[in-house]
Amino acid sequence: NKEKDETPHAAGVVTGLAWTPVGGEILYVETSLSRGKGNMGLTGNLGDVMKESATLAFEYLKSHSDQLGLEPSVFEKWNVHLHVPEGATPKDGPSAGITMFTALASAFTQRLIKPRLAMTGEITLRGKVLPVGGIKEKILAARRAGIKEIILPADNKKDIEEIKPVYLKGLKIHYVEQMIDVLDLALMGKLASNPLKINY
Amino acid sequence: NKEKDETPHAAGVVTGLAWTPVGGEILYVETSLSRGKGNMGLTGNLGDVMKESATLAFEYLKSHSDQLGLEPSVFEKWNVHLHVPEGATPKDGPSAGITMFTALASAFTQRLIKPRLAMTGEITLRGKVLPVGGIKEKILAARRAGIKEIILPADNKKDIEEIKPVYLKGLKIHYVEQMIDVLDLALMGKLASNPLKINY
Amino acid sequence: NKEKDETPHAAGVVTGLAWTPVGGEILYVETSLSRGKGNMGLTGNLGDVMKESATLAFEYLKSHSDQLGLEPSVFEKWNVHLHVPEGATPKDGPSAGITMFTALASAFTQRLIKPRLAMTGEITLRGKVLPVGGIKEKILAARRAGIKEIILPADNKKDIEEIKPVYLKGLKIHYVEQMIDVLDLALMGKLASNPLKINY
Amino acid sequence: NKEKDETPHAAGVVTGLAWTPVGGEILYVETSLSRGKGNMGLTGNLGDVMKESATLAFEYLKSHSDQLGLEPSVFEKWNVHLHVPEGATPKDGPSAGITMFTALASAFTQRLIKPRLAMTGEITLRGKVLPVGGIKEKILAARRAGIKEIILPADNKKDIEEIKPVYLKGLKIHYVEQMIDVLDLALMGKLASNPLKINY
Amino acid sequence: NKEKDETPHAAGVVTGLAWTPVGGEILYVETSLSRGKGNMGLTGNLGDVMKESATLAFEYLKSHSDQLGLEPSVFEKWNVHLHVPEGATPKDGPSAGITMFTALASAFTQRLIKPRLAMTGEITLRGKVLPVGGIKEKILAARRAGIKEIILPADNKKDIEEIKPVYLKGLKIHYVEQMIDVLDLALMGKLASNPLKINY
Amino acid sequence: NKEKDETPHAAGVVTGLAWTPVGGEILYVETSLSRGKGNMGLTGNLGDVMKESATLAFEYLKSHSDQLGLEPSVFEKWNVHLHVPEGATPKDGPSAGITMFTALASAFTQRLIKPRLAMTGEITLRGKVLPVGGIKEKILAARRAGIKEIILPADNKKDIEEIKPVYLKGLKIHYVEQMIDVLDLALMGKLASNPLKINY
Ligand SMILES: [Ca+2]
Ligand SMILES: [Ca+2]
Ligand SMILES: [Ca+2]
Ligand SMILES: [Ca+2]
Ligand SMILES: [Ca+2]
Ligand SMILES: [Ca+2]
Ligand SMILES: [Ca+2]
Ligand SMILES: [Ca+2]
Ligand SMILES: [Ca+2]
Ligand SMILES: [Ca+2]
Ligand SMILES: [Ca+2]
Ligand SMILES: [Ca+2]
Repeated sequence: NKEKDETPHAAGVVTGLAWTPVGGEILYVETSLSRGKGNMGLTGNLGDVMKESATLAFEYLKSHSDQLGLEPSVFEKWNVHLHVPEGATPKDGPSAGITMFTALASAFTQRLIKPRLAMTGEITLRGKVLPVGGIKEKILAARRAGIKEIILPADNKKDIEEIKPVYLKGLKIHYVEQMIDVLDLALMGKLASNPLKINY
Repeated sequence: NKEKDETPHAAGVVTGLAWTPVGGEILYVETSLSRGKGNMGLTGNLGDVMKESATLAFEYLKSHSDQLGLEPSVFEKWNVHLHVPEGATPKDGPSAGITMFTALASAFTQRLIKPRLAMTGEITLRGKVLPVGGIKEKILAARRAGIKEIILPADNKKDIEEIKPVYLKGLKIHYVEQMIDVLDLALMGKLASNPLKINY
Repeated sequence: NKEKDETPHAAGVVTGLAWTPVGGEILYVETSLSRGKGNMGLTGNLGDVMKESATLAFEYLKSHSDQLGLEPSVFEKWNVHLHVPEGATPKDGPSAGITMFTALASAFTQRLIKPRLAMTGEITLRGKVLPVGGIKEKILAARRAGIKEIILPADNKKDIEEIKPVYLKGLKIHYVEQMIDVLDLALMGKLASNPLKINY
Repeated sequence: NKEKDETPHAAGVVTGLAWTPVGGEILYVETSLSRGKGNMGLTGNLGDVMKESATLAFEYLKSHSDQLGLEPSVFEKWNVHLHVPEGATPKDGPSAGITMFTALASAFTQRLIKPRLAMTGEITLRGKVLPVGGIKEKILAARRAGIKEIILPADNKKDIEEIKPVYLKGLKIHYVEQMIDVLDLALMGKLASNPLKINY
Repeated sequence: NKEKDETPHAAGVVTGLAWTPVGGEILYVETSLSRGKGNMGLTGNLGDVMKESATLAFEYLKSHSDQLGLEPSVFEKWNVHLHVPEGATPKDGPSAGITMFTALASAFTQRLIKPRLAMTGEITLRGKVLPVGGIKEKILAARRAGIKEIILPADNKKDIEEIKPVYLKGLKIHYVEQMIDVLDLALMGKLASNPLKINY
Repeated sequence: NKEKDETPHAAGVVTGLAWTPVGGEILYVETSLSRGKGNMGLTGNLGDVMKESATLAFEYLKSHSDQLGLEPSVFEKWNVHLHVPEGATPKDGPSAGITMFTALASAFTQRLIKPRLAMTGEITLRGKVLPVGGIKEKILAARRAGIKEIILPADNKKDIEEIKPVYLKGLKIHYVEQMIDVLDLALMGKLASNPLKINY
C-alpha cells in the first residue's frame, strides 16, 4: 500500500505531511546532488508558493552552512535537484518548508534521516518555523502510514490539544520554534552508505 | 503498419506504452548525443509533467553515474536530446518515466536495448518505480505491436491479475520496484555498432 | 500570538507595517546573504510593485554604499535574498520600501535593528521617502504587536494628526524625508553576534 | 507567378510541400550560416510543432555529422538561421521535417540541391521518416510549380496509389524510410559557387 | 504639497510632464549608477512603450557618447537604473523620452540639471524630437508646481499658440527639434557635489 | 508637417512605406551602433512578424558581409539597435523588410542613403524580394511626402500598372528581384560625416 511510509535508504529523502480536499496524506521530498555550479532544480508539479519554499530552504541552508559543518564552496560545486512525487498531482502551499529544508540538509551532509518520522511547517528566512493548517488530517494520515514521530511548529500545539487523545496514541510529537531544531531531531549521526564526498 | 514495434538499430531508443482516450499505443523515446555542456533538449509536443519526467530521469542518471560506469565529466561534455514522435500529437503524464530513464542510460553507455521489449512506469528521485494507469489498454497495444516482454511497476501487479490470461499469452511480464532494476532487464551487454566514445 | 513583534536576533530582519482589507498588520522583511555575484532573490508571494520596491532599495544601496562604509565590491561577492512571510499570502504595493531598504542595509553592514521599531514608506531613487496609505490601521496594528517606535514619511504627518491621541499613547513617531534618515534611526551601532565578514 | 518553383542558386534552400485549408502549396525552407557558437535561429511565423521539427533536424545533423564528412567542431563555430517565407502566413505541423533537415545539410556541406525537386515528411531522432497528410493536394501543387521529382515517406505510398495516374504524369516519386536516404537523393556533388569554408 | 517641483540635489533626476485622465502632472525621472556591465534596470510600473523610450534614450546616449565627452568604455563599467515614482501608478506612452534621455545624460556626465525646468517630448534614434499630446494640461501642471522653464518639441508650438496668454505668464518655453538641443538647455556646467568618477 | 520626408543626415536611416486602415504613410527605419557583442535591439511597438523581418535582415547581412566589404568580425564588436517611430503606434507585417535591410547595411557601411527615396518589400533568406500589399495607398503617401524615387518588388509591377498615370507623375519607380539590388539603388558612395570606424 503506497500510504505506508518507507524508510529511505539514502540521504536526502524526508517524509512530509500534506493536506488535500479529501484528507491528509504523506508525501516524500526527494533530493539528489550532481556536480554543477550551485543551481537548484525543482520537479513534481509544484505551485509557485511551494517553489518559493524550496528557494527559501536552499537560501537558509547556504547562509547557515557553518552550523552544519559545510564549506560555503560546496554550493559552487554541486547542483541539487528536489522532487515531490507523484508527478501528476499538482501541489502547492508553504507547509512543506521544514521538510524541504531537512531534505536539503540531509543531502549536503549525507546524514540519514531518522526512520518513521514525518514533519510539516512553514519556514522563514530568519529561522523561525510558522504554523500550518490541516493538522488533524495530517496526524491521521501519519498514523495510517506507520509514522511514529512527528515534528510540528510550536504554534500548532493548540491544534493538537483539540484532537482526541485516542488518535494520538503511539505518536511522539515534537514542537519546534526554530528551523535548526528540526535538524537536531531529524538528522542522524549515521551517514548514508557510500556517502558522496561533498567537501572534496 | 506503424503499430508494429521496430527493434532499434542504435543505442538510445526505447519502446514505451501509452494510454490514450481511444486505447493503448506504443511510443518510442528517442535520444541522441552531441558535444556540448550537459544540456538536455526536449521535443515531441510534451506537456509539463512529461517534461518533468525527462528532467528527473536525467538528474537520477547524473547522480548515479557510478553505477553505470560513467565518468561524471561526461555530463559536461555532451548534450542530450530526447524526442517522442509523433510531433503533432500532444503527450503528457508521468508514465514514460522509466522509458526515458532507460533511453538516456542506453545513450550514455551506448549499450543496445533488448528487442521486442516495452515498458511503462513513473520514476522518482529516490529510485523507486511508481504505479501508473491504463495497464489493460497498454498490454493490448503491446501485443498488437509484437512485443514479447514488458516491464511494469511492482505496484501494478494487481492490474495484471485482473486481466483474462488469454490476453497475456506470449507476453513475459517483469515487475520492478527500483529504477536500477529496469536497466538490468533492458540494457544488453552488446554495444551499438560504431558506438560513440563517451568517456573520451 | 503571532501578532506580537519579536525582536530579531540577527542582522537583516526589519518590522514593517501593512494595510489589508481587514485592518493593519505587522510584517517582517527578512534578508540573508550567501556568496555569489551580486544577485537579489525575492520570495513571499510578492506582486510586481513590491518586487520593484526591493529592486529600488537594492539599487539605492549599491549607489550609496560609501555612506554606509561598504566597499562597492561587496556587491560582486555576495548574493542577497529577501523574503516576506507568510508564503501563502499575496502582498503588493510600494509601502514596504523603507523596510526593505533598512533590511538590506542591516544585512550588508551586519548592524542590528533597534528593537520594538516598525516602519512604512515608499522609496525613490533620489533618496526621498514618499507618503503611503492606511496609516491609522497600521498604527493600531503596531500597538497590538507591542511596537514602541514608528518611522513614517514626513508627508504622512497629517494622517497622524487626525488620529485620537489615546490611540497613539506609548508610541514614539519619527518622521523622515530622506531614506538615509531611516538608517540613522533604525540601525544600531551593535553588530550581530557572529557577524559575517562582508568586506573580506 | 510565385507558385513556380525556382531553382535555388545557393546551398541551403530546399523546396517543400505544404497542405493548407485551400489546397496544397510549395514552400521554401531557407537557411544561412554566420559565424557564431552553434545557435539556430528560426523565423517565418512558425508554430511550436514546426519549430520542434527544426530543432530535431539540427540535433540529428549534429549527432550524425560524421556521415556527412563534417567536423563536430563546425557546430561550435557557426550559427545557422532557418526561415520559411512568407512572413505573414502562420505555419505549423511536422511535415516540413525532411525539408528542414535537407536544407541544414546543404548549408553545412555547401552542396547544392537537385533542381525541380520537392519533398515532404516528418522526421524522428532515430532517423526514420514518418508519413504525413495531404498527399494529394501536395502532389497537385508540385505539378503546378513545375516540380519533376518528389521525395515522400515510404508509408505514404498507399496515398499515391489512390491518386489517378493522370495527375502523376511527368512526376518521379521517391519513397524513403530513412532520413539519410533523403540526402542521397537531394544533395548534388556540386558545391555552391563561392562555397563557405565550413571546416576552417 | 507633493505637486511642488523640488530641485534635485544630485545628478540624474529630471522633471517631466505627464498627461492623465484627470489632468496634467509633473513626474520625476530618477537614475542612479552602480558598477556593472552596462545593463539598464527599469522600475516605476512602466508600460511597454515607456520602457522602449528608456531603451531608445540609452541607445542614443551610447552611440553619441563622444558628443558628451564620455569614453565608450563607461558603458561597460557601470549599470544604470531608471525609476519613475510613484510605484503604485501605472505609466505608459512615449512622451517621457526627452526627460529620460536628459536624466541618463546627467547621470553619466554628473552634471546637474537646471532648477525649475520641466520637459516633455518623444525621442527617435535619429535624434529628432517628436510632438506629444496633452500640452495644455501639462502646462497647467507645470505652473502649479512652480516650474519656470519648459522644453517642448518644435512641432508642439501650434498647441501653445492655442492657449490663452494668461496661462503662460511667467513661463519660458523652449522649442527643440533635436535631442542634443535639450541637453544644451537642461544640463548645467556645474557638477553634482561629490560627483562619481565615471571615466575611471 | 510630419508627413514630409526629411533627408537623413546620418547613415542608418531609411524611409519606408506602410499601409494602414486609413491610408498609406511613410515611416522611418532608424538604426544606431554601439560597441557590443553583435546583438540587435528592437523598439517601436513592433509585432512579431515585423520583428522577424528585422532578424532576417540582420542574418542576411551577416551571411553576405563580404559583398559589402565588411569584416565578419564587425558583428562581434558592435551592437545594433533598430527603431521605427512613432512609439505609441503598433506596427506589424513583413513589408518593411527591404527598408530594414537597407538601414542595417547603411549603418554598418556608414554610407548615406539617397535622398527622397522610399521603399517597401518583404525579404527572404535566399535574397529574393517578395511582393507586398497596399501599393496604391503607399504611392499616394510617398508623393504627399515629397518622395521622388520608390523601390518596389518586381512582382508588384502589376499593381502599379493599375494606377492612373497622373498619380505616378514625378515618381521614378525601380523594380527589384534581389535584395542586393536594393542596396545598389539606395546606398550612396558618400559616407556619413564623421563616420564610425566600423572595421577598427
Ligand atoms: Ca498519493
Ligand atoms: Ca510537509
Ligand atoms: Ca500513433
Ligand atoms: Ca511508457
Ligand atoms: Ca498574519
Ligand atoms: Ca512597510
Ligand atoms: Ca503562397
Ligand atoms: Ca514539406
Ligand atoms: Ca502624483
Ligand atoms: Ca515628459
Ligand atoms: Ca504618422
Ligand atoms: Ca516599407
